[in-house]
Amino acid sequence: MPKVSEEHREARRRQILDAAWVCFARNGFHRTSMPDVFAEAGLSAGAVYRYFPSKEALITAIAEVSTRQLIDILDAHLASTDLAPPEDLLPAIMEDLTTLAAGTTPAPMAVQVWSEMARDHKLAGAVADMLGDIHERMTELCRRYQATGAYDPDLDPGDTARVLIALLQGWIIQWNTLGLAAHQQVKAGLRELLTRQRVRGGG
Amino acid sequence: MPKVSEEHREARRRQILDAAWVCFARNGFHRTSMPDVFAEAGLSAGAVYRYFPSKEALITAIAEVSTRQLIDILDAHLASTDLAPPEDLLPAIMEDLTTLAAGTTPAPMAVQVWSEMARDHKLAGAVADMLGDIHERMTELCRRYQATGAYDPDLDPGDTARVLIALLQGWIIQWNTLGLAAHQQVKAGLRELLTRQRVRGGG
Repeated sequence: MPKVSEEHREARRRQILDAAWVCFARNGFHRTSMPDVFAEAGLSAGAVYRYFPSKEALITAIAEVSTRQLIDILDAHLASTDLAPPEDLLPAIMEDLTTLAAGTTPAPMAVQVWSEMARDHKLAGAVADMLGDIHERMTELCRRYQATGAYDPDLDPGDTARVLIALLQGWIIQWNTLGLAAHQQVKAGLRELLTRQRVRGGG
Repeated sequence: MPKVSEEHREARRRQILDAAWVCFARNGFHRTSMPDVFAEAGLSAGAVYRYFPSKEALITAIAEVSTRQLIDILDAHLASTDLAPPEDLLPAIMEDLTTLAAGTTPAPMAVQVWSEMARDHKLAGAVADMLGDIHERMTELCRRYQATGAYDPDLDPGDTARVLIALLQGWIIQWNTLGLAAHQQVKAGLRELLTRQRVRGGG
């Protein structure tokens, strides 16, 4: 039997996920069959099943890839020595998400995953864990803002983080359902609301 | 041929929509077949098809019913002579949505509709119009807050309305995917954030 290197395995896994991403973006989870994925990847059924035993396994992996993109963006903000002021944070994250390479933005996958979670309890459990990782990082960002005095020290940072995540999710919904104009409006409105109301409140 | 009254037609239409709602909530749009709806409604195929020629027509009607629930809530706030302060508005709307009769809350339908819009362009067009009606009302609420001085008069009310709608949508996502605890956290966090930051900003 040939010895398959870890790099080869990872590249093959990536190739399958990229093909699944294209299929899911085009036809959605439900109207995509495993043979569609084999064809898009240019691989045999056996080659794909070795990595992903079912469509559900592919969907969970796609949810992980999408979530990871946001986690990486949040980690970059946390690692930055020059944290954006709170009114710039969400617009900056939105900017980061929209400037990801074309075809890799997680928005259309995220909306399908959220919808699917209501009926696929295994997926729901896996995604809830991933959302927990996002919530943890967002909570840490809120604590930083409390430390700098930008946020009231008595705010519950976990609850505040939920609100910021809800804003991001709603923005993704509007982007996905109403297109670029609506999502730009949310971004503009958010920056404007947070800046002006802050200036007004403080003035 | 028997003469069918308008009331009878409306009651029959409602009976089919209620059955479709139960099926869609249980198995999702994709795993529900028209025969499932006939069985749930206790009606013949012909009786159902007279009102809804396809599953797509049923989904569009369900999207209308869900949207109408939010529009009615917004209209009630607009008609109130005693408008809630801005930090109470979204929590009040969330409260209104959660206290709708069990099994009729639009949350699980809304998430499926948003996901489906990416691939069903006819549905997307119909829902975009409905979201326009919601946006119009939310914009009017923002104008009222500008008139009372609660919102900066230079804010773009349409952009601000988009942000408030995004918050509601994200809250629905968290409710639907993470359950009651997360959605209570968003509501608590929002009220806390808006109240405390406002007090802090103003103090």
